Amino acid sequence: MGKVFLNTMEPEEVVKIIENLPFQRKVEKVSIEKASGRMLAKDIYASINLPPFSRASMDGYAVISEDTFKASEANPVKLELLEVVRAGDVPQKNVEKGTCVEVSTGASLPEGAEGVVMVEVTERKSGENTENILIYESVAMGENIALEGSDVKKGDLLLSKGTRITSDKIGVLSAVGMKKVPVFKKPQVAVVSTGNEVIKPDEKLSYGKVYDINSQTISSAVESCGCIALHSEIVKDDYKSLKNKINEFKDADIIITSGGTSAGTGDVLRTVLDEIGEVIVHGIAVKPGKPTLIGLIPDGDRKKIIFGLPGYPVSALVIFQVFVAPFLKKIASVAHDKQTNVKTFKISRRYHSARGRLHYALVKVEGERATPILKDSGAIAALAQADGFIEIPKNVEIIEEGSYVDVMPFSGL
Amino acid sequence: MGKVFLNTMEPEEVVKIIENLPFQRKVEKVSIEKASGRMLAKDIYASINLPPFSRASMDGYAVISEDTFKASEANPVKLELLEVVRAGDVPQKNVEKGTCVEVSTGASLPEGAEGVVMVEVTERKSGENTENILIYESVAMGENIALEGSDVKKGDLLLSKGTRITSDKIGVLSAVGMKKVPVFKKPQVAVVSTGNEVIKPDEKLSYGKVYDINSQTISSAVESCGCIALHSEIVKDDYKSLKNKINEFKDADIIITSGGTSAGTGDVLRTVLDEIGEVIVHGIAVKPGKPTLIGLIPDGDRKKIIFGLPGYPVSALVIFQVFVAPFLKKIASVAHDKQTNVKTFKISRRYHSARGRLHYALVKVEGERATPILKDSGAIAALAQADGFIEIPKNVEIIEEGSYVDVMPFSGL
Repeated sequence: MGKVFLNTMEPEEVVKIIENLPFQRKVEKVSIEKASGRMLAKDIYASINLPPFSRASMDGYAVISEDTFKASEANPVKLELLEVVRAGDVPQKNVEKGTCVEVSTGASLPEGAEGVVMVEVTERKSGENTENILIYESVAMGENIALEGSDVKKGDLLLSKGTRITSDKIGVLSAVGMKKVPVFKKPQVAVVSTGNEVIKPDEKLSYGKVYDINSQTISSAVESCGCIALHSEIVKDDYKSLKNKINEFKDADIIITSGGTSAGTGDVLRTVLDEIGEVIVHGIAVKPGKPTLIGLIPDGDRKKIIFGLPGYPVSALVIFQVFVAPFLKKIASVAHDKQTNVKTFKISRRYHSARGRLHYALVKVEGERATPILKDSGAIAALAQADGFIEIPKNVEIIEEGSYVDVMPFSGL
Repeated sequence: MGKVFLNTMEPEEVVKIIENLPFQRKVEKVSIEKASGRMLAKDIYASINLPPFSRASMDGYAVISEDTFKASEANPVKLELLEVVRAGDVPQKNVEKGTCVEVSTGASLPEGAEGVVMVEVTERKSGENTENILIYESVAMGENIALEGSDVKKGDLLLSKGTRITSDKIGVLSAVGMKKVPVFKKPQVAVVSTGNEVIKPDEKLSYGKVYDINSQTISSAVESCGCIALHSEIVKDDYKSLKNKINEFKDADIIITSGGTSAGTGDVLRTVLDEIGEVIVHGIAVKPGKPTLIGLIPDGDRKKIIFGLPGYPVSALVIFQVFVAPFLKKIASVAHDKQTNVKTFKISRRYHSARGRLHYALVKVEGERATPILKDSGAIAALAQADGFIEIPKNVEIIEEGSYVDVMPFSGL
């Protein structure tokens, strides 16, 4: 009867194979405005001192500390005001004994100054030709000032290769005036829907045709893993079209197809890979998604990875989330923490599962409860209602009402 | 001594004020490729039936069910093959008694067909002028077929207003051929650093100047809340420059400034707001970030919100994360789930906090342990090391080594 049997593998085994897939990360420079969420590809050393000059860290008066040692509420010390230095100004005068300079927070400290008396413990007295400042509290050497390089010294290691660039690290890179940041390049993933019946959203729906679902769905999921989705194309479900299309994807690091992987008449991807590459997984003991395929295609001195997802939208998306997404997040240098997304709910009704295969079931979440959606995997209505899916181990046949289940949500950006 | 005292509020009170700030969400249409992560602004009804035509859900032979009722392994039924219909083809012939049509998964079902016999339980027999198919199993009416509209009926409510568009919902919208999706518009946030000493990264660092940190840091944090950061500009720390700049931001829904909020000589933002708007918060009982300011500026028939963050980078970022980020996520229709990001760690050393104010302290996380970073809030070195920060309640003076603390991470995209 012409059926090609799949060499079905256990999901745990497939997860290990995927973890060990080869991938060479590339480096690119991006402007600091675009660096958020990326991962540093090089160690970053400070190109300047921070602060770049000694400065006041309070509004007040820059003084020689000794001048203020006897100052008190009862007996203020009087100092002559030489000039006013605001943040951004260059001081013109040096502080000498008996004098002071008004400084604002962030202002450059005049030569000779040893500390800054806070404005709150001073009083201004205007004389005929001079301005005098009464100081009511003493200030120690170094008080309320930040010396040049006291925060960061030029040449210090600021951030290590592999650091994820969150908003605080943007601050660190900005502080040393960095414009371009070396980061790991986002992997480029070509996404292809196969099928003679599949048309693009801007085409007219004629009889026998359906709108493309998978390339849009998978592209969205690929982007939410920190990768770039390329091409989102539709290919006819025949050997020649698929082979030509795969060979066209010169710029892609990874190719994801959907459809064409069943062990039936339409098993086109398998045939293509047997010729131009190698098949490393064909068949996973899960439901849905059994005909999933993973292959490698020689590409110069490296190998291009190809994932062949099933054609049914729910199957394609679930297999993507379980098997492909963790790998894409890893090579995109995006933190993959399964536990942060998975949440536990009580199941609202008894659920029967097919024994013998790990089973994924769509669920709708309401309050504390998760309800399985009893529709087949081609059903768009099911996807419309779903909030995520649960994993049912292969030796479990029945989940009793009220049991706790872990729900994996579908990803969004 | 000329000090303007702030009317300091408790943080819980400020959180409530922010929660009740007015904001009118706008609607826009985006292409489906850009709709991921956004929130639906309208109910979406199905514009077509799904499937759009009755189709085979298995590879096999479309038949009249009654023809197969007596079929068995021992006594197969022989049917004449009329034609082959692949997915995407339009059937040319009707199935009549004694005949069948070969169909592949997803193919349109010929007129007259009632069920599809799976290819695995059939055998092909070529005759002289005809092709015959031996059927070894009976098929019920409706078996292995999906009737037009059986999944979704034209006019059905597919997705409700307020649904977050994750990759599975992209699939739902694609299935009905949607090209443009009505979503809530991303709020536009103008980000401004104030200070005469602050320069852009492409300027030369002359004496007394520092590179802009806050507009870059806050812009990155704004974008990770699902908003659009506009302008990222530097404004001189004087009344006229700031007022003019604020009036320029016609397209911004919200303005975030940093610096210029201390109750000292540089209290420019307060003065501007007293003239052109109103101040609703000035001073929060937290450390760092006490001089934080929130105001409203009349803008036609609505009010523009302005957040005045402190000037020190760590203070600005912490205040943003604690007070501003939850609000931005809410108005950007991004799920804000504090609990998913916060993680608990053991503190690695005894830590002293100032009593009387809620205190935020930067921490570095290693393995299971969080170590407070003992540097002042101007320190870039502290930001470089930090993984997040902890909140120390105002009545807690000492956190003992080994206590558990909740760490809030800095956000990345």
